[in-house]
Amino acid sequence: MNKRSLAVLLRARMRPNNSTKLAFSPLPNRSGARAMQPSSDNANKPQKDFEHVRDSMHSAISMNKTEVIDTVLNDFSEGYFSLCYENRRRLLLVLAKEYDLNRTQVCELIKQYLGVLGEEAQSAGHEEDGVLGSFYRIERNLRHALKPMYEGLFERLNMHPGGLKVLTSLRADILSILAEENIASLRALDSYLKEKLGTWLSPAALELHQITWDDPASLLEKIVAYEAVHPISNLLDLKRRLGVGRRCFGYLHAAIPGEPLIFIEVALLKNVAQTIQEVLWDDPPIPECEATCALFYSISSTQRGLAGINLGKFLIKRVITLVKRDMPHISTFATISPIPGFIQWLLSKLASQSKLAEVNDISQSSADRSGSAFRENILEPEEEKALMDLSEEFVAGKNGMERMLNLLTSKNHEWSNSAPLLSILKTPLLRLCARYLLQEKKRGKALDSVANFHLQNGAMIERINWMADRSENGLHQSAGIMVNYAYR
Amino acid sequence: MNKRSLAVLLRARMRPNNSTKLAFSPLPNRSGARAMQPSSDNANKPQKDFEHVRDSMHSAISMNKTEVIDTVLNDFSEGYFSLCYENRRRLLLVLAKEYDLNRTQVCELIKQYLGVLGEEAQSAGHEEDGVLGSFYRIERNLRHALKPMYEGLFERLNMHPGGLKVLTSLRADILSILAEENIASLRALDSYLKEKLGTWLSPAALELHQITWDDPASLLEKIVAYEAVHPISNLLDLKRRLGVGRRCFGYLHAAIPGEPLIFIEVALLKNVAQTIQEVLWDDPPIPECEATCALFYSISSTQRGLAGINLGKFLIKRVITLVKRDMPHISTFATISPIPGFIQWLLSKLASQSKLAEVNDISQSSADRSGSAFRENILEPEEEKALMDLSEEFVAGKNGMERMLNLLTSKNHEWSNSAPLLSILKTPLLRLCARYLLQEKKRGKALDSVANFHLQNGAMIERINWMADRSENGLHQSAGIMVNYAYR
Repeated sequence: MNKRSLAVLLRARMRPNNSTKLAFSPLPNRSGARAMQPSSDNANKPQKDFEHVRDSMHSAISMNKTEVIDTVLNDFSEGYFSLCYENRRRLLLVLAKEYDLNRTQVCELIKQYLGVLGEEAQSAGHEEDGVLGSFYRIERNLRHALKPMYEGLFERLNMHPGGLKVLTSLRADILSILAEENIASLRALDSYLKEKLGTWLSPAALELHQITWDDPASLLEKIVAYEAVHPISNLLDLKRRLGVGRRCFGYLHAAIPGEPLIFIEVALLKNVAQTIQEVLWDDPPIPECEATCALFYSISSTQRGLAGINLGKFLIKRVITLVKRDMPHISTFATISPIPGFIQWLLSKLASQSKLAEVNDISQSSADRSGSAFRENILEPEEEKALMDLSEEFVAGKNGMERMLNLLTSKNHEWSNSAPLLSILKTPLLRLCARYLLQEKKRGKALDSVANFHLQNGAMIERINWMADRSENGLHQSAGIMVNYAYR
Repeated sequence: MNKRSLAVLLRARMRPNNSTKLAFSPLPNRSGARAMQPSSDNANKPQKDFEHVRDSMHSAISMNKTEVIDTVLNDFSEGYFSLCYENRRRLLLVLAKEYDLNRTQVCELIKQYLGVLGEEAQSAGHEEDGVLGSFYRIERNLRHALKPMYEGLFERLNMHPGGLKVLTSLRADILSILAEENIASLRALDSYLKEKLGTWLSPAALELHQITWDDPASLLEKIVAYEAVHPISNLLDLKRRLGVGRRCFGYLHAAIPGEPLIFIEVALLKNVAQTIQEVLWDDPPIPECEATCALFYSISSTQRGLAGINLGKFLIKRVITLVKRDMPHISTFATISPIPGFIQWLLSKLASQSKLAEVNDISQSSADRSGSAFRENILEPEEEKALMDLSEEFVAGKNGMERMLNLLTSKNHEWSNSAPLLSILKTPLLRLCARYLLQEKKRGKALDSVANFHLQNGAMIERINWMADRSENGLHQSAGIMVNYAYR
């Protein structure tokens, strides 16, 4: 290959454009090939396929331990991936409802337990060891009785080569279904499977791997495909992300070879970057030995089916330990992170508050303005004034909040190209962003998903940066603001 | 190093002679070093050490999630390994008893459950989804309430670097204590920890590694130290075990690097070996390409704390798959295995039956001999006759069984050097050995531990081999008989 063609190849677009909601088969899809053969009863085929997979699922759950189960599990996995969305849904509901736990057995054990409790009360301390022994026995049995039958399928798949990958695909499908309909039995199954996956993917079982340009193309391809924060456009871009001044680390699991479950990208810098542009350079700004800061600028998960299982926390912890050991001159560990939920939260706040303000203005005297319990002073008086002083040519709106709302939703983020608008918006947006990150909670968790992730990991909010990400996406989700979380 | 010194080094004895019942510290024992310093209150030191470790254990269990827990876990681990046996025992009992589950909470949930059951009976099918939702919720809560508090310590240690190794050492100590005293709470803790370890060490999380002479000495040293079946005497012996005509495979876990949890040794042969001597050659008898049989001649576990967790089954399965792929000319997979419990079982059988026979002979007429329900004809009439025909110089005894007993327990296994005795004993010993392997069960499991292992794995008894292991140990445990289990 000549230099020219290589350059073209390196620049070719690599991100796949898949938007199907079905999890992909990790296995060669032999069933799919079979479906191409002419058949006299094509109309019944989906139903027959469904029944076949349901039968192999049943065998996989109920087969005796010593029987050879590998064929059955392969059958089930291949069959499952050949099913259409509707049949996968049916199958998962069968699994959730018909392979639930044995409630009669649970009740039986509960009665035994209450019986022992009664004995204990009567014996009042005598024979304590005997009573305790009964407790231990029944509690153990109760633990087992509370395991749904479908655990058998999960356990066996997990032990089966390729099975862990099948389970994550299964869960990805379950999450798709639950996003559309709330089915109690399926939600219970999902919560059970999630806990199981969390146990199997315990950080101790994961191998930290530094991803470099020397890794197999099949692995690097995954990095390009799954980079969720700052898309990698081509191989040349990827090569830079893995080159001098940068690091990339992934967690590999023995059962899912050649595919990191999660990976993190690190830039070695003089200081904590305040904009994403400082990080996405083509040539390293300083020699690595002068770096004092390791900046995490992207963390991406590759398995939709592992949603809610926090692998990132341990990945960050281990990367920090590793970098500290290998580069003692680096003492600062921080992120430059997006704030994905800020504008969505702000717009809804502005909309509701500007409506409340309007109602108040009409129905009440200004002295009584604070009367409404839900009314909030989102803008400071001088900010309100600056916005209302703007000419109607720029923006319409009966109050500052409505005007802010209109500016932020203007076409192509025009406000971000106007120096006067930027100077008016900067202070209120930064203040409201700080409030959003620090104070807005839902069930005790930070409302912003990325903030919640880092704060739960023990990081702190270090700095909020104005115009840190001027990309379309950055302006859209957080008015271009980014945040540094610091890890100690 | 000259050739001579190298030869000496390679032949030096390597097996350690440790017989302490304490699990070893996997960490540098800093506390031990501290203990060497002069101190004014040496008498109270063990008590203070105990209290310190108990406190760090308490912190490790009860600390808030986001707090930095690594220091506490390191503290606990180091502290634990610095404790004497008695204090470890005290600590483990504190853990088992004071960090058990919350029975009040379990009772509360049980009452809720019974309440929902009542509702369900009343509603008779209406509102089914609502009732189901309640079941799912309470069952989930019940599952969590049934987790003892000490699970927190286990979970956190498992996620902590080096923690899995600490947990296996902890369990090794627990097993030592339970071997001496049966404590219900500690047994419950052990059964819980065993199940946890089994989940974390799921075969999917283990990496199959072919152990070769190119592996680090620190890993090879472990093979020498832990080979349980046919001791490796020195490095030269080890080099042969890893050389041409042989294979060695181990299961590695990411959290216990450089130390296989279990390993298996394989010899590549023309036919299934009938004696262990055919396997322990110095030079390969055939070129590898002529082999048609992979013979598993040794499988050893390195972690006493993983007793009862069947990693071997999956190791054998994966090795078979691997060998089949790499060497398609190999189609037979079998073991040559010891029968560790045979002679112990046989001697007790012979003793009880010869006593029963004696009593019968005195009290009853010979026609009524079959009257005793426990009486068994262990020997065939011609075997009985051959034994009774032996001169009293050779062996004493009032009946064949007593004579057999006396022969088998004779000093230095003299019977094994006498051609006439060998020919008399061969038939009854082989027949009784077959019976022992195939028919003697305890709770549905084969009485012999090795037989139980292979039969549970799905293997079959292929052949019983006379004088297959003439070593002191072989004669002692199974009268020199070995067995081939065949894997399909």
